[in-house]
Amino acid sequence: MLKKFEWKKTEDKEQLSGEIKALRDELLGQQQLLREKKLPILVLIEGWAAAGKGSLIKELISEIDPRFYNVVSPAVTPESEARYPFLYPYAAAIPENGKIMFLDSGWMESTVRKYLRREITQEEYKRRVRSVNEFERQLRDGGYLLLKIFLHIDKKEQFQRLAALTEHADTEWRVTHEDLWQHREYARFLNAYDEFMEKTNDPVKWHILDGSKRKTAVRDAMKLLVKKTEKALAEGRYVGEPFEEDFPLIKMPRLKDVDLSYCMDEETYKKELKKLQGRLSELHNTVYRKKIPVILCYEGWDAAGKGGNIRRVAYPLDPRGFDVKPIASPEPHELNRQYLWRFWTRLPRTGHICIFDRTWYGRVMVERLEGFCSEKDWKRAYNEINEFERQLTDWGAVVLKFWIHIDQETQLARFTERQNTPEKQWKITDEDWRNREKWPQYEIAVDEMLQKTSTENAPWYIIESNDKKYARIKTLKIIIKALEKACEEQFGKSMG
Amino acid sequence: MLKKFEWKKTEDKEQLSGEIKALRDELLGQQQLLREKKLPILVLIEGWAAAGKGSLIKELISEIDPRFYNVVSPAVTPESEARYPFLYPYAAAIPENGKIMFLDSGWMESTVRKYLRREITQEEYKRRVRSVNEFERQLRDGGYLLLKIFLHIDKKEQFQRLAALTEHADTEWRVTHEDLWQHREYARFLNAYDEFMEKTNDPVKWHILDGSKRKTAVRDAMKLLVKKTEKALAEGRYVGEPFEEDFPLIKMPRLKDVDLSYCMDEETYKKELKKLQGRLSELHNTVYRKKIPVILCYEGWDAAGKGGNIRRVAYPLDPRGFDVKPIASPEPHELNRQYLWRFWTRLPRTGHICIFDRTWYGRVMVERLEGFCSEKDWKRAYNEINEFERQLTDWGAVVLKFWIHIDQETQLARFTERQNTPEKQWKITDEDWRNREKWPQYEIAVDEMLQKTSTENAPWYIIESNDKKYARIKTLKIIIKALEKACEEQFGKSMG
Repeated sequence: MLKKFEWKKTEDKEQLSGEIKALRDELLGQQQLLREKKLPILVLIEGWAAAGKGSLIKELISEIDPRFYNVVSPAVTPESEARYPFLYPYAAAIPENGKIMFLDSGWMESTVRKYLRREITQEEYKRRVRSVNEFERQLRDGGYLLLKIFLHIDKKEQFQRLAALTEHADTEWRVTHEDLWQHREYARFLNAYDEFMEKTNDPVKWHILDGSKRKTAVRDAMKLLVKKTEKALAEGRYVGEPFEEDFPLIKMPRLKDVDLSYCMDEETYKKELKKLQGRLSELHNTVYRKKIPVILCYEGWDAAGKGGNIRRVAYPLDPRGFDVKPIASPEPHELNRQYLWRFWTRLPRTGHICIFDRTWYGRVMVERLEGFCSEKDWKRAYNEINEFERQLTDWGAVVLKFWIHIDQETQLARFTERQNTPEKQWKITDEDWRNREKWPQYEIAVDEMLQKTSTENAPWYIIESNDKKYARIKTLKIIIKALEKACEEQFGKSMG
Repeated sequence: MLKKFEWKKTEDKEQLSGEIKALRDELLGQQQLLREKKLPILVLIEGWAAAGKGSLIKELISEIDPRFYNVVSPAVTPESEARYPFLYPYAAAIPENGKIMFLDSGWMESTVRKYLRREITQEEYKRRVRSVNEFERQLRDGGYLLLKIFLHIDKKEQFQRLAALTEHADTEWRVTHEDLWQHREYARFLNAYDEFMEKTNDPVKWHILDGSKRKTAVRDAMKLLVKKTEKALAEGRYVGEPFEEDFPLIKMPRLKDVDLSYCMDEETYKKELKKLQGRLSELHNTVYRKKIPVILCYEGWDAAGKGGNIRRVAYPLDPRGFDVKPIASPEPHELNRQYLWRFWTRLPRTGHICIFDRTWYGRVMVERLEGFCSEKDWKRAYNEINEFERQLTDWGAVVLKFWIHIDQETQLARFTERQNTPEKQWKITDEDWRNREKWPQYEIAVDEMLQKTSTENAPWYIIESNDKKYARIKTLKIIIKALEKACEEQFGKSMG
């Protein structure tokens, strides 16, 4: 890629200015259409230190109405990278429909630099490359126009620019040790950038621009942006096709075959509960110290006992180290972004436990059944979710998913009880009754979900909850076992 | 306060448990009402290290449905405090309507600690106390139920608890150097806590609880919460009364007296623009290095030329160091919180420039005229906004506010032109025409706003914009002058 790059010829300045002006006008004309067609655009600008990324962005945005774009420099929030998955700062910043986001270096720079610094292993590098490809594909399939630009200059040009910057007191501070290190290691970086771009050129292609000729680069970048936008506006929002990927799946039973007769007497329950909560409390300490992030996902039938189950798990935890995130229907600003955005932004920091009361699986249940997304969307989601969860476990998270299960008779009994108990009436709505009528359709969807998304790294557990006491104890045991395992492994790793 | 505190007698455990259970049931019954009445509750728990703040919160939340509460420990985000105003982490975390937020130590601890460490001066301490009182009153006046608890233990008790924690490998890490320092300096802390509570006991009262008797503290805290909630639910959301505060105001002319005949020829404009943009670019560098936050506020008539003006200011800026925040009507999650929340969360980091395209002044313009808030609300807002802006300038921010001004004829001409130019049609809506009919009412509101909120620390500038070129040059000059002054002052300070 970079090695075969052909540097641009010098072009006539006047003509370039004219072209840029014309393109700028086109872009201006497009911005309102972006909003109407709800097209979100993400422009990633990577490149050498001093290649002119900032100036390029400045030129690109100079005439765009500020309501239509924003610029993100994740370099300024290194803290978040340390305590979240490496894609987090980017996933949290994706633009909403109708807006353009310019990213001033991103997942490529942070990965390549860490790799060259040996802060990540080759294995981790490979996992990052895979995650990047997944992330980009998911954005594209979710209707995002993604434009990736690399701004290229050669070593000599870089030398001249760095030298010019250091000559003036006012700009000297802009040249960092990192930049000088990159310059010294130009050849190594060249190889590493090349390799990264080779490996992430599909499904979203890289565009290498000649950064040594500023105006040419502006024209070329603007042309790319205008042409790609034009195409996307003409074709309408892209909706990705579902596809199968090879995940190590755990065989799950059909819901109808689940034995719901398990139960537990009050005395055993109390004794067990106390013991297990005590153990969980200890483990929370360890998890916190070892900085293991923990993600507990609750799904289940209405009135299955999710809330009570969650409370029993949460009770022994230190409130400073966990959060329960109740997931309701998405708000407008959430609907305006890729559907996983509202979960990315709710992820726990390392060492923290996050309990999701309902999750991203809404995509393949309620959104599927109520037609809130297209068929392609929910069919694609199984894989996208498996990828998302693998990114979480790659990061080191423990991800456990619970399907809190009851039968229809038990649900009816609980609904009726809620209806007849004044303090509980708020818990039962017309919607619950309507959902109940769709039990058979939901059962199909849940069965499919369990089959397709119970991966080895992020398994589903069916929690028989006709007897809530039994259900709570079973859940606690699963959590404890998983955390014990994670704490041991982490120990092993750090001894490694 | 603390010095006169009377320690509680030991109570019967059985009876305490019974009382706690009864209160817990009451709280359970209230949670749905909170949502119905849209009452937000903020419970601030301050207190000594090892006094049991975490355990207290754990008990308080143990039976509440996770959909109704969250717990915030700002201690874990020290970074944000460094780059934002000291109230930022709390202001950004306030609960939405119908929810309870538990804050595990907050603005008191961070202020007292920094003061004792001499990281802030006495002057700064005083300003913080004032800001805290303002912040708490604003929340109360905005309908928040604010409950402030201090968990008290004596030095001996603290010693025993810290010792017990350090004895076990699993809990040893919980005792920090800060905690040990506090213990050694117990008497100084006692004085400092006392003084802080004395000074912040109005308008929102402190409640000191005996932390040495855990169950008693839980019962007392829960009782406070339940009783205060009961009262608030019965009385309905509180709406604060407007009041006058003594701000150093700059005398502003009436809009009708503003001479709009200023204009500038194309040639002078181009020359000036280039020169001023060059200077602004240099200053942006300095502002960034000196870590001065800059907040530029744009308000003005529809079609007055805000957008074009903003673009000319933004053009010379490094996109990595500024943001334009367009402010539209609030989204549901924004409406569900105090009205300044969506501006607190959009503040720039130190060293960054934030340009607000419309601002918090919507409160006293569109929200006033359209009845989106009550009369008390918008009348109170003048003071609240002055306080908010003083908090920003106390932090070190440069705050400049521009009223982009045109007359009715010019607006009509521009509306008509937009209507007749296809690329510009999206800029003109029926709402703009409706607003135009309300020009006289708006003029009254704008005049009142300019009179009441042009403070010396955050002044308004009327920008005559019948001629857009003149307007842009004038705005640039004002910004440059203010930044030059700020950079010099900062320099003086650091020479200190």
